[in-house]
Amino acid sequence: MSTPHYSVVEMSEAEVAQEREVLGGLAGAVRALADASLRSTIDLEEIAEIREAVDGLTERLRREQIEGSFGVSFTPDGTVRGHGNAVVGLRNPIAVPLSIHKDADGRATTAFTLGALYEGPPGCVHGGVLALLLDQVLGECAAASGSPGMTGTLTLRYLRPTPLGDCSIEAWVDRVDGVKTFVHGELRRADGKPTVDVEGIFILPRWAREALEKEGRNPPRFE
Amino acid sequence: MSTPHYSVVEMSEAEVAQEREVLGGLAGAVRALADASLRSTIDLEEIAEIREAVDGLTERLRREQIEGSFGVSFTPDGTVRGHGNAVVGLRNPIAVPLSIHKDADGRATTAFTLGALYEGPPGCVHGGVLALLLDQVLGECAAASGSPGMTGTLTLRYLRPTPLGDCSIEAWVDRVDGVKTFVHGELRRADGKPTVDVEGIFILPRWAREALEKEGRNPPRFE
Repeated sequence: MSTPHYSVVEMSEAEVAQEREVLGGLAGAVRALADASLRSTIDLEEIAEIREAVDGLTERLRREQIEGSFGVSFTPDGTVRGHGNAVVGLRNPIAVPLSIHKDADGRATTAFTLGALYEGPPGCVHGGVLALLLDQVLGECAAASGSPGMTGTLTLRYLRPTPLGDCSIEAWVDRVDGVKTFVHGELRRADGKPTVDVEGIFILPRWAREALEKEGRNPPRFE
Repeated sequence: MSTPHYSVVEMSEAEVAQEREVLGGLAGAVRALADASLRSTIDLEEIAEIREAVDGLTERLRREQIEGSFGVSFTPDGTVRGHGNAVVGLRNPIAVPLSIHKDADGRATTAFTLGALYEGPPGCVHGGVLALLLDQVLGECAAASGSPGMTGTLTLRYLRPTPLGDCSIEAWVDRVDGVKTFVHGELRRADGKPTVDVEGIFILPRWAREALEKEGRNPPRFE
């Protein structure tokens, strides 16, 4: 089964809740299995048995599946359902997943906890993982301000190490200049000290502007 | 069981090969399960059953495990075994994992394939995932040149979208200025066109310089 990159999904509230429960639950369970696989020190013979059991579950899941790109779906009111997204996707086991709050004044904030799966230098979060999360939060901040775009540039300054554990991100739009949205952000560790300072420029590509104008649609809003 | 952030591991060649086979195999199997969990369209009742089976395997793996940070271990000759690393770690199911080749002339290159687990915009790799991978490759390039460091700044220019599929990265050291190593890199999509241009400045922190000097050790080399 292959799906288009974009589709519109009409579901009842009960169906949305069930989907969140079951599919989100599976992603969460696989995320926990990934963490346990990394950390386990049980003997190699049992590890090999568990690997076979994992292969069996994969085979069952693959009996019917979306091939190629997972894509993005929209609800009828135009809200994006990015369930496959590598940072916020409900169904993506490698996503943290982040839950990003957008204030009325255009600030995007999120708090989360990172464990050994996201480690780089010993005891610290991988600097690239922080870039990954910041890119998503800044992008959603630009979109929430009414000026969505794809990442044009991202400039990250690492101020000090980020220990594994509780972290938070805050992002805000500095200014909009034509098709460019300038967004600033800061990643903070558990004690509140900023560890990464970031600026992103988000640009709505011409093909996307033309498509939106043609359909008389507003720029997308995110769940 | 809690482990120190740094440890030295002495293993025979046969033990190293067995570890790679069994633990790397488990990480690969969990990675495939993550992909299948994202893509599956089998009915929700069976999904719920599979989730329970996953929880059972997690419980078995967690019977004995490393708590907190996974850390980094070294072989007796000082080679880093970053088996937990979020980009290259043998045991990390969220890692691609990248295999990075370092040339005698100081270039670091790697080729890899990214599927739906790493998706951002529909059909394309998440821009933040590209930042994550580039950070790792540039950092290893700095280290391989004899001037390792932690990421100080990272400046990414996104030139065009990167479709899911085959990609490659090439990185090279521009110059070394005291404790700062300036590294350049390029990400290319399957048709060879560059999609992201990046510059990173890697800085060896004072505490690391002092520790190396005190122990009379050389900067670390990576597997």
